[in-house]
Amino acid sequence: MNLSPAVTELIRALCCMPGIGPKSAQRIAFHLLERDRHGGELMTDALKFALENVGHCSCCRMLTEQDICDVCSSEKRDSSLLCVVESPADVAALESSASYSGRYFVLNGRLSPLDGIGPEDIGLDVLQTRLQDDQLKEVILATNPTLEGEATASYIAMMVEKRALACSRIAYGVSVGGELEYADGSTLSHALSGRRPV
Amino acid sequence: MNLSPAVTELIRALCCMPGIGPKSAQRIAFHLLERDRHGGELMTDALKFALENVGHCSCCRMLTEQDICDVCSSEKRDSSLLCVVESPADVAALESSASYSGRYFVLNGRLSPLDGIGPEDIGLDVLQTRLQDDQLKEVILATNPTLEGEATASYIAMMVEKRALACSRIAYGVSVGGELEYADGSTLSHALSGRRPV
Repeated sequence: MNLSPAVTELIRALCCMPGIGPKSAQRIAFHLLERDRHGGELMTDALKFALENVGHCSCCRMLTEQDICDVCSSEKRDSSLLCVVESPADVAALESSASYSGRYFVLNGRLSPLDGIGPEDIGLDVLQTRLQDDQLKEVILATNPTLEGEATASYIAMMVEKRALACSRIAYGVSVGGELEYADGSTLSHALSGRRPV
Repeated sequence: MNLSPAVTELIRALCCMPGIGPKSAQRIAFHLLERDRHGGELMTDALKFALENVGHCSCCRMLTEQDICDVCSSEKRDSSLLCVVESPADVAALESSASYSGRYFVLNGRLSPLDGIGPEDIGLDVLQTRLQDDQLKEVILATNPTLEGEATASYIAMMVEKRALACSRIAYGVSVGGELEYADGSTLSHALSGRRPV
């Protein structure tokens, strides 16, 4: 293709975004250059600022540009509950469900010995400190229901047990609004074994 | 959601890209901040550079950071052919087909009186100058086969006629590799009326 070096370089750079291939990147590049230069400038500024300033909350490891994030510094949050999740996206999902008012701890990963990801890489030393909080009563394990997520949950469950705190795992089952017909065998098996009296 | 201001602002800014909604923007923001800060920096730099330097070729109105783009300044291109397209993406598509070796003219839009887009807004004054080139023999109209694209093509055809140059329109018909069964009626009608002796 005979695109100019700056445009070619922009298209290549845009491909670093997840879900964006060369074709989408080209579409985005042309759109920003032709129709929305102001939007492009806002995007550059926001990204530059975020890359330079956003780090992890020293308390819960959530992405934030503050030292302590809003959830950790809020007085309204229930300090007796701590929900352990794999990623900031999980916090966003739980928050948008508006059904949880406790604190969070973000692993930013999951245990994966094959990839060389050990306890320290997912901040379990920081979590250990959090577990010593006197107000804390229950730890909710909300890692993903994958093999590695399960292994991570088991590992953390052992840590929690040593501190004699309550420890729970979020429920597995059929999605609300889903249909039994389309649920996979493993989910149905968990839904049955996790049945509760009406 | 309890995301920090910088992250919220980044997600909002990323939504200016076509095809990117709030959910994808959040995924991209977390990916860049958590996993690919280097890619994010390259993206910021490339976008900043492109926004500051890329303009339109003064000869064909293609996006380029040079005054005259590579296609216009190339000696290997056939100066007797001029292909008129609506957008830089069309040039990219034609170039990747490797079946055209003439020059281009990019309208960066199409005539649309209802939106207040007239001949000067799509650079037809620049095109008029191009038509005075002695080497030019044929103008190929490759605007999109939409109502506005057709109107634009007719308008330019009249300009070309006045200069007594050959003028052609790209062929309409069934896509190569497509199936007749799934072609729409209008396309089939054009494919029939445009039939050629074998």
